Amino acid sequence: MNQENYTLLCDYYELTMANGYFELGRKDEIAYFDVFFRTIPDGGGFAIFAGLEQLVSYVRNLRFTEEDIRFLRTKGTFSEEFLDYLRTFRFSGDIYSMREGTPIFPGEPILTVRAPIIEAQIIETFVLLTVNLQSLIATKANRIVRAAQGRAVAEFGSRRAQGAQGAILGARAAYIGGCGSTACTISDREFHIPASGTMAHSWVQMFPDEHAAFTAYCKLYPNNATLLVDTYNVLESGIPNAIRVFREQGITHGGIRIDSGDIAYLSKKARKMLDEAGLPNCRIIASNSLDEFIIRDLISQGAKVDAFGVGERLITAKSDPVFGCVYKLAAIEDELGNIIPKIKVSENNEKITNPSYKKAYRIIDNKTGQALADYLTLADEEVDEGQPLELFDPISTWKKKTVTDYTARPLHEPIFLDGECVYDLPDIEEIKRYCAREVESLWDEVTRFENPHRYYVDLSVELWNLKRRMLENAGKCE
Amino acid sequence: MNQENYTLLCDYYELTMANGYFELGRKDEIAYFDVFFRTIPDGGGFAIFAGLEQLVSYVRNLRFTEEDIRFLRTKGTFSEEFLDYLRTFRFSGDIYSMREGTPIFPGEPILTVRAPIIEAQIIETFVLLTVNLQSLIATKANRIVRAAQGRAVAEFGSRRAQGAQGAILGARAAYIGGCGSTACTISDREFHIPASGTMAHSWVQMFPDEHAAFTAYCKLYPNNATLLVDTYNVLESGIPNAIRVFREQGITHGGIRIDSGDIAYLSKKARKMLDEAGLPNCRIIASNSLDEFIIRDLISQGAKVDAFGVGERLITAKSDPVFGCVYKLAAIEDELGNIIPKIKVSENNEKITNPSYKKAYRIIDNKTGQALADYLTLADEEVDEGQPLELFDPISTWKKKTVTDYTARPLHEPIFLDGECVYDLPDIEEIKRYCAREVESLWDEVTRFENPHRYYVDLSVELWNLKRRMLENAGKCE
Repeated sequence: MNQENYTLLCDYYELTMANGYFELGRKDEIAYFDVFFRTIPDGGGFAIFAGLEQLVSYVRNLRFTEEDIRFLRTKGTFSEEFLDYLRTFRFSGDIYSMREGTPIFPGEPILTVRAPIIEAQIIETFVLLTVNLQSLIATKANRIVRAAQGRAVAEFGSRRAQGAQGAILGARAAYIGGCGSTACTISDREFHIPASGTMAHSWVQMFPDEHAAFTAYCKLYPNNATLLVDTYNVLESGIPNAIRVFREQGITHGGIRIDSGDIAYLSKKARKMLDEAGLPNCRIIASNSLDEFIIRDLISQGAKVDAFGVGERLITAKSDPVFGCVYKLAAIEDELGNIIPKIKVSENNEKITNPSYKKAYRIIDNKTGQALADYLTLADEEVDEGQPLELFDPISTWKKKTVTDYTARPLHEPIFLDGECVYDLPDIEEIKRYCAREVESLWDEVTRFENPHRYYVDLSVELWNLKRRMLENAGKCE
Repeated sequence: MNQENYTLLCDYYELTMANGYFELGRKDEIAYFDVFFRTIPDGGGFAIFAGLEQLVSYVRNLRFTEEDIRFLRTKGTFSEEFLDYLRTFRFSGDIYSMREGTPIFPGEPILTVRAPIIEAQIIETFVLLTVNLQSLIATKANRIVRAAQGRAVAEFGSRRAQGAQGAILGARAAYIGGCGSTACTISDREFHIPASGTMAHSWVQMFPDEHAAFTAYCKLYPNNATLLVDTYNVLESGIPNAIRVFREQGITHGGIRIDSGDIAYLSKKARKMLDEAGLPNCRIIASNSLDEFIIRDLISQGAKVDAFGVGERLITAKSDPVFGCVYKLAAIEDELGNIIPKIKVSENNEKITNPSYKKAYRIIDNKTGQALADYLTLADEEVDEGQPLELFDPISTWKKKTVTDYTARPLHEPIFLDGECVYDLPDIEEIKRYCAREVESLWDEVTRFENPHRYYVDLSVELWNLKRRMLENAGKCE
């Protein structure tokens, strides 16, 4: 999957602008773009960053084929010199990024691209696309997994995903966010996300009766016998047949899956029937349009569910299916390499960008190990952990807090330098563990599903002063 | 894009079931599966079917590579004989489908697969995935295009799509549904969806001021000069600068794009300013989180917009992002080739399937050319257009209507027969025109955005009798 060339998966305006910069002789001007988002899906307190691995593979494969160039020529928009330039086009810039699995917050640069303007523009669409998809699904999965309170969650949604990559990479992102497995077989081959699954209703229908279908299955897979019990009637037929077959076959550690009806009611009844039949180790798996809210409610109502299979509401993040990362110019360099900060103003405070080339830190309380806030500085600033750090709200600046005994952990790592990938992509298990650990380091108040406490992303005094000066001059100098 | 092998993009349970049928010696048993959906997105009156072309390409490319087989072996679930069987696995069955662009309704078979059970199971996930994605976006696009009442609608959403195929095939589906263009360049190369686009805010920010940015753009693209006017201030800066540059460069047929603020207010002001400046042919394009409801409201408030750019709310179908096609067993064949109908029962009427191998007809009123209802029959029934046809509601059977002077147009065409594709894939322009014409043939009442009139999908007497008999026996004979 990683070999596909997605160079032309870019908005057409990237190419009209690129041709423009080329024609104006500006192709080598260096620009800095930040990727950040403004709103956390589902009104949550944080999101999970994912998609970096695919971004790396995309950038590495970036090149225009002769077919691409022939196609572009037919558009009648681009100069021959520009098309010729595209023949040897490669990414030659730098990318700094947070690690996959990092909890992320609105307004902070998740990644920063420093590159010649044409290169920086052409990668915009795909960079956003891959970060948006996987961050969306990792974030949603993490909510669902937290709702399940330690019970296993399997990702089941391929058939309702928005396209092949939505299914394949969605399964990857769901695993990073905390799911334990997927139904999507190809994601196991590609990314080692454990694929699992047993039977559909059609299996049961293909046999003369449910007992025959269950018997056949248990003989084939005695160690992985999860029987789907709602093809005809869960309590009257499905569970009695499952119990009968488990006993006949001597299976003590089987499972049943309930895919319709009221899961709270049915699972409690099922647990009782299984226990009374001497099958206390038979697991109950529930599926059917689940999400974090339904799972939370089921558990609070005492549902006896050991594992959840979650489909369309996870793989499309149905309740809020857009992750809104944007890609905004933060600075350019002049001929001497000086950074000229840029800002995008707006009537709306959240839409005003943070100017210039920046670094991001997570401020960790050394006593508790918990994350206190994120802290953005200009790239050339140093944070002296020996000194107290005054954090202040960048809008309501009178809200202040001084922290001592902290660690300022840099959040960005170099991924590409001068077009070369300098980053060792971590193993998926490492990403998943890192994600779980980082979420653990957040205050409980930040992890609430609804109306969570706001985690602050604060600016250094120097960055804040620059921003204020630029806003005051905006419309004049900009 | 079409060459990718997605054979392993299947739910793992397809493979555990397949291995099971193989081990049981049942691999050659013929099964019939129907693809249908139950609920129209956004509460609309109809959906648009799309995705057949990708389904065809998927089925043609269906094969397990040695890498796939090696991977499957590591799972420890499958017999060597089964893995060996997969080496030469191809689709050898039949597929009958509606044409892309057809308005579709809940409960009717959009496509029917007749194939050996293993083949029919293995293709389930991808068939649903591709039909669900493109039908979702074509349906949403059609709503948005109808809201725009003849104004052009451009698809702009690649960066917020759920993955690469979501962007690429989403653009294709949006075009089928009625959009006029896309921002997604690769969809132009692959599917001839016209790609267009001009500039981002970053273009404006890359110049000393807006006037310089607009001047540079107009000199480069005098015939395609759509200027983005909201980087600083639409009315105070963007439009005055656009007017100044259009006049300086003698551009009479340029355009401006407004991407923030109140589009109704700003577009009316903009129109007035442009007209007073002698630029009545300068077009106004609006973007920024649009959908069918906002566009309808903007037009009813007199917004002066000539074209809409629609992004995330189209490319993810944000307000209802799941298209719920399912794949249900309708029949099997016995050793003699007799069709044995199958039914899936449920507490919920909509979840009960229509049994057996069926045909679907659109009943057209010969006087008006309008679609009156869809009509499902058993596959061996004939509809005699010379006879009056009694349509009755399959739930409330006392609601009847007799039609005369009608045409019963078969909705299914053979796509694959004995594993061979027998269908000439139509050109995208033909699909788009067909879709527009078919939507035109629906009653206005059915096309309402909210609380539309229900279009009936009725059953023949014979099919209805079979279903009733099977329901009465369900749980006994099934």
